[in-house]
Amino acid sequence: MQAPAPLHFWFDFASPYGYFMGEKIDALAARHGRSVRWRPILLFAVLRALGLPAPLENPVKRDYMAHDFERSARHLGVDFRLPPGFPAITQHAARGFYLLEAVDAQAAVRFARGVMRAYFVDATPIGDPAVVARWLAAQAPVLGNADTCLQLLQGAQARSLLAAAVDEAVRQRVFGSPFVMVDGEPFFGVDRLPQIDAVLAGALASRPFTALAPP
Amino acid sequence: MQAPAPLHFWFDFASPYGYFMGEKIDALAARHGRSVRWRPILLFAVLRALGLPAPLENPVKRDYMAHDFERSARHLGVDFRLPPGFPAITQHAARGFYLLEAVDAQAAVRFARGVMRAYFVDATPIGDPAVVARWLAAQAPVLGNADTCLQLLQGAQARSLLAAAVDEAVRQRVFGSPFVMVDGEPFFGVDRLPQIDAVLAGALASRPFTALAPP
Repeated sequence: MQAPAPLHFWFDFASPYGYFMGEKIDALAARHGRSVRWRPILLFAVLRALGLPAPLENPVKRDYMAHDFERSARHLGVDFRLPPGFPAITQHAARGFYLLEAVDAQAAVRFARGVMRAYFVDATPIGDPAVVARWLAAQAPVLGNADTCLQLLQGAQARSLLAAAVDEAVRQRVFGSPFVMVDGEPFFGVDRLPQIDAVLAGALASRPFTALAPP
Repeated sequence: MQAPAPLHFWFDFASPYGYFMGEKIDALAARHGRSVRWRPILLFAVLRALGLPAPLENPVKRDYMAHDFERSARHLGVDFRLPPGFPAITQHAARGFYLLEAVDAQAAVRFARGVMRAYFVDATPIGDPAVVARWLAAQAPVLGNADTCLQLLQGAQARSLLAAAVDEAVRQRVFGSPFVMVDGEPFFGVDRLPQIDAVLAGALASRPFTALAPP
């Protein structure tokens, strides 16, 4: 019997709602016998390609979201503090993820979860490539020590792995973080957890998504 | 003993998520001994004043939302069909609401609920002022017959009542539909129903909202 296809979980490492989803989606999927493929992206690059503004561009929405991040974290039971200097640059963490995934997919997910907790609980500066390099070296000694990992983060392989993920996100119209694909059906936002749960349980019918607009 | 303050429910008559909220918010509030003050607005006018783009402007998000409207309606158990020519012009319905509210606040809420059901279940052209005038006359004979109501909809009182509501929405930073204020705390989107429920039940602490950006 063939295993059912994994869910695809698209997120940006500096997205609070993405972090909340990351704390919930694996357990939810597992309850329905499904796995999750984590796909970090640079949200600003995907949005630019799709002709959309950055989510925190407008000050009125930014004020609301700062309030809502904190409230939603309490509602979901997730530890959270908005880090100073938010949002961090996330290209090093995302490149690190794909480097690690190429050698150990499960370690990459542990790395991703650890990066988001470090950022959103302990305000660790995840935009610093030296910090990312140290974690990479600790998670996957096969990649080399922290100095080697720092070089890898700035190398051609890391760049091209992340660029491919961003291109794929644009093709899949991933217009926000988090964005979960369940058998080709898109779900935007951590607010869609109950609908994802209902679809996986068979309580809400899955419907094919029809894209009318060109990608 | 003083009655607790009503919730404020801001919406646009052509907003599917606003319609879903309208089908749920009164019963939810009533379970916690609270009433709801319905406040229709012209969302495009409020968004323009706040420097935000219209929600359906981008084709990639529009495709997703068409899918999500239908799925969310099924998930919430609300009858829904996306009407042809969506979104309708909503200024006549909103003006009608405020004319009616000035003489009978409860009739105005029944009118609002009826307008949204007529639009989102039966595809009635709610953008047509003659349609709105007939409903007004039926709901509140004190306003006069359908011809008189049609004149009222285009008169100075109706214009100024709606303009005042739009101005108030801009001051309150109502950047979407639906938008619910609970004792000064803002909740954007029908997805926030569980959080509103938890706050009213005392299970989630209410926190004062701090706006940093100028309105």
